[in-house]
Amino acid sequence: MNYVGLDIGGTTIKAGLVSESGLVLSTAHAATVADNLEGLVETLAGLVAHFNPVAQFEAVGMGIPGILSARTHRVETSPHIPCIHHVNLEEILSKRLKIKVLSDNDANAGAYAEWTCGAGKTLGHMAYLTIGTGLGGGLILSGSLYRGASGFAGEMGHITVEPNGRRCACGSTGCLETRVSGPGLVETARELSPGYAALTAESIYKAACAGDKVALRAFEVTGQFLGIACANLINLLNIEMIVIGGGVIASGDLLLDSARAEVQQRAFEPAARICPIVQSQLWPNAGLIGAAMLARDHQ
Amino acid sequence: MNYVGLDIGGTTIKAGLVSESGLVLSTAHAATVADNLEGLVETLAGLVAHFNPVAQFEAVGMGIPGILSARTHRVETSPHIPCIHHVNLEEILSKRLKIKVLSDNDANAGAYAEWTCGAGKTLGHMAYLTIGTGLGGGLILSGSLYRGASGFAGEMGHITVEPNGRRCACGSTGCLETRVSGPGLVETARELSPGYAALTAESIYKAACAGDKVALRAFEVTGQFLGIACANLINLLNIEMIVIGGGVIASGDLLLDSARAEVQQRAFEPAARICPIVQSQLWPNAGLIGAAMLARDHQ
Repeated sequence: MNYVGLDIGGTTIKAGLVSESGLVLSTAHAATVADNLEGLVETLAGLVAHFNPVAQFEAVGMGIPGILSARTHRVETSPHIPCIHHVNLEEILSKRLKIKVLSDNDANAGAYAEWTCGAGKTLGHMAYLTIGTGLGGGLILSGSLYRGASGFAGEMGHITVEPNGRRCACGSTGCLETRVSGPGLVETARELSPGYAALTAESIYKAACAGDKVALRAFEVTGQFLGIACANLINLLNIEMIVIGGGVIASGDLLLDSARAEVQQRAFEPAARICPIVQSQLWPNAGLIGAAMLARDHQ
Repeated sequence: MNYVGLDIGGTTIKAGLVSESGLVLSTAHAATVADNLEGLVETLAGLVAHFNPVAQFEAVGMGIPGILSARTHRVETSPHIPCIHHVNLEEILSKRLKIKVLSDNDANAGAYAEWTCGAGKTLGHMAYLTIGTGLGGGLILSGSLYRGASGFAGEMGHITVEPNGRRCACGSTGCLETRVSGPGLVETARELSPGYAALTAESIYKAACAGDKVALRAFEVTGQFLGIACANLINLLNIEMIVIGGGVIASGDLLLDSARAEVQQRAFEPAARICPIVQSQLWPNAGLIGAAMLARDHQ
């Protein structure tokens, strides 16, 4: 039996028809409607309907960029999609489609994908970080997706890595996300060289590939902060793998080599030795595959 | 049936005869022999024998200040007790006493005590921190003691809270332990006021109680770093309680009020709301009670 996975991003919704074993059979996408709940539900229903004539599917899974209550399944907060604030999107879409719909945090879905079908298959303990406009995270602990007491666990973007660091949208200062994210990388490049011309993470990546020193150093500094977060995860949770996805990870070892060097400085050696830091195997489909696999496993 | 719990510290070993339900029936203590394994084993055996004529007991549990392998039960490292480095103390003592002996990290034992008989009873998810000469930690996640892949989890003392902070004995910089510990508190007071007369955590506590401004500020700064660590635990793990024990916690709300204020600044509000930060209920017996309860539950 197949499943539909929806990965709802701040600007785009990715949809996929996913097989029982996690293979993506077909995909579709649409622009996210962020400020109008009815419009968003119509868009989601349209994406699901896209797969309807092609194949039967059992259920729909959704990855949502926000914090969901494990008890009520409501979205507690979603900075990029205000129209779903305090909404049970799962219930609304399920009524609309007359099919079982399951929702979870988008980074939890990514973690679940890498654990069931990707880099972390068969592991007992792993972390997944997704680095894009923000930084999201999901944890697999003791062989299951770890949600914590209320479903809020895995907010790695808001771990403090610099007490007096940059102001974060969450209200705190020095959150990992202010350093390790597309905008964080751009800000670092500008701090290194005021008036620096490369204005996006992608253009900094291209400059780095061409040997630009500011761009290379911006990746190195960003990787150091990523490494601090990875070392904290290793010392605290003694996990077996850290999988890193998200748009910024296209830069690959440019970021990860610096992170790995920092981990060697900071993590307890026997724990760091068993915890490789690797790129996502399923990116950019990790979110939709994970959403589909959550729908498969939690009916 | 009763159990003997041993809490092996850097300078003192505390021993207790503990009832099935975690009540301490009798205690004893002895100086730690740190550099001579035979002498240490004799001391431990002598402490256990102390309870022999009084009551029958089923098994012995030990809390060890160091990192233990969950697979081999060997001590991987124990900075304060070098003679147990790479030793399976559990096996040696079991052969010597001809009784079942179980060992775990001392902070894991403390966490287990607070969870089974103390402040965190019935919770699904909690963290325990013990602040003394160093800073140890233990995690209860999803209703059981979380050890991670190799048994090394919970090394909260070596979470980075200041990337360019104080040098730590572990080789890294800016570890929580360099700030939140007896020696860390003393160093903070000296930084605030070079030549400051109070030379121990206890004397700084007395000075703070008498209204000394440097001492009060040293506790405030130390509490802020403790609060950063607590906020990270809340954002990452969405736990339901943080229990704080250890010698330095005699200072109570002097430290905790500052930590709680920092958590309010840094943690996701719906997650912080459900996670009180409280003093250990079982201190100074948390370690030995937890060791006995681990022996009770893991035979």
